[in-house]
Amino acid sequence: MAKQTVLFPNEPNVVSVYSVAGPKEAEGHLGKFISETLTDDKFGESSFEKAECKMLSVAIKEAIKASGKTESDINAFLGGDLLNQIISASFAARDLSVSYIGLYNACATFSEALAISAALIDGGYFGATVAATVSHFASAERQYRYPLELGSTRPPQSQWTVTGAGAAVVAKCDGFPKLLAATFGKVVDYGVTDANNMGAAMAPACADTLKVLFRETGTTPSDYDLILSGDLGALGSRLLKKLCRDDGFDIEKNHADCGELIYNIDEKEYQGGSGAGCSAVVFASYIFPKLMRGEIKKMILVATGALLSSVSSQQGESIPGIAHAIILEGVCTK
Amino acid sequence: MAKQTVLFPNEPNVVSVYSVAGPKEAEGHLGKFISETLTDDKFGESSFEKAECKMLSVAIKEAIKASGKTESDINAFLGGDLLNQIISASFAARDLSVSYIGLYNACATFSEALAISAALIDGGYFGATVAATVSHFASAERQYRYPLELGSTRPPQSQWTVTGAGAAVVAKCDGFPKLLAATFGKVVDYGVTDANNMGAAMAPACADTLKVLFRETGTTPSDYDLILSGDLGALGSRLLKKLCRDDGFDIEKNHADCGELIYNIDEKEYQGGSGAGCSAVVFASYIFPKLMRGEIKKMILVATGALLSSVSSQQGESIPGIAHAIILEGVCTK
Repeated sequence: MAKQTVLFPNEPNVVSVYSVAGPKEAEGHLGKFISETLTDDKFGESSFEKAECKMLSVAIKEAIKASGKTESDINAFLGGDLLNQIISASFAARDLSVSYIGLYNACATFSEALAISAALIDGGYFGATVAATVSHFASAERQYRYPLELGSTRPPQSQWTVTGAGAAVVAKCDGFPKLLAATFGKVVDYGVTDANNMGAAMAPACADTLKVLFRETGTTPSDYDLILSGDLGALGSRLLKKLCRDDGFDIEKNHADCGELIYNIDEKEYQGGSGAGCSAVVFASYIFPKLMRGEIKKMILVATGALLSSVSSQQGESIPGIAHAIILEGVCTK
Repeated sequence: MAKQTVLFPNEPNVVSVYSVAGPKEAEGHLGKFISETLTDDKFGESSFEKAECKMLSVAIKEAIKASGKTESDINAFLGGDLLNQIISASFAARDLSVSYIGLYNACATFSEALAISAALIDGGYFGATVAATVSHFASAERQYRYPLELGSTRPPQSQWTVTGAGAAVVAKCDGFPKLLAATFGKVVDYGVTDANNMGAAMAPACADTLKVLFRETGTTPSDYDLILSGDLGALGSRLLKKLCRDDGFDIEKNHADCGELIYNIDEKEYQGGSGAGCSAVVFASYIFPKLMRGEIKKMILVATGALLSSVSSQQGESIPGIAHAIILEGVCTK
């Protein structure tokens, strides 16, 4: 097998982040860490789709500002979202005067964007990029399941798409968290067909990517303070841990899931958060400061995506999963 | 402004290609150059969407075979398509045991995939990748405009989405066409709102990317044997040439457009071909052999994308355009 892992010997850095999220996310465990929370989940716009685009746009522009750079220092924006033809990303890119590299790997897009950014910076091709993704509960429900106005009941295995955007500026700049390596995942499909059970659809891909990462980097789970999956939720996380155990490695002690962290799961969120914005918001709010303070020394962020569309489900297809992992190193504080 | 152009000093190569296209494309000017043409545009499948996926899958597998490599030598598949959540690419990736990097920049995805492939190979991150895209007339009409069964009339400014897939294997291998540089485009929006007039929506982005490429590489149109746009069609190509002239450079003598080349435009195709498969099929059928034989010494391929969705159009948005350019050098035959 050809290798799936790339190393970044020049150790590009995540120099700044910014997160924007909705009222529900503001009430969750991580609410106080989110850079900007909304009281109105339409963000003053006329549609949920436009609100989604605006969240992404704000996250990108504020992350650039926080890096001490201006738009004219940024070579490219890499990112995407869950909407058809990733219109949130494309319309956010329209407001930027930087190159646009549109990506789509569902909820794995954030780590995909960070990984390609890291390669472009590490290889000396670009000086600075911004990686960013977004999702919105209402636009995702409308597109993938039912419009909210229908008042459909959600089954207990469902997750709650995060209304939020996260952005990270990647550049070579000492004193900031480092991007050491990335493992690009393969598509894995265990035959799950329930579009409400994303965690089960994505867990096998996540386990596969982690297995490859450990093998190709010669590391084990205990080499990392944190192995953070993107949006498997409670059920998917249990499946991931079981699949990893079956494969001979144990991530029980240091695994966490962005989807499990973001809400106070007590009612309608069931299994936790999901969406392309989930890992981006959690990374940009809660995790990055811990890397900056050296509280996390070495970690894996493995965002996970379910590669379905309403058409593929209607045509009887199962839901393939994908997961891309990046290895990050916190700032050494001695 | 931060630069948009990246140079590939190690000159990665396009080592093999493969193209698959439908019955209509088989009858066009380039039909005889296409590797495999279908007599049935459902390709034996139960839906147009599944046929689209199968075309991409065949193109990828045959391109890998033609390179003399096997799947186990390929590090990643980079690509996308026009369907919601790029399901053709995702489901084609499911059949491959290689990493999947999903991209979406509408019909500019083929040059985006080649450009990122080139960076990953040039930087030594990967040994070989396959870049591939696909589109299908029937699935695109259904999604963006009307299902064929409605028998809707097409306006004269419309184009015909190419039913076809093209794939290219990128690796470092002397004696094959070289990828010298890439210019990643910015999103440009002149306010076009007619979803039947893609050429007009994309031409400004194409002109902008070419202008940046010439400025950042210190070259002029006369340095290239061919400046090949992706799918502007006849009307869009006229607009592009005018916009370039207005900007002080003349591409009249060496410009061609994949959308104008692919059909015998006499009736329903109006302005010519379009779609994520358009530039991929034309490159993989007609252009690559010319680079191999040294008939083209230096060229620009600038695939162009219209970043709309049916939702963005329904919500009154205009159609932003994007274009990514790559500079290719043919094999030196003395």
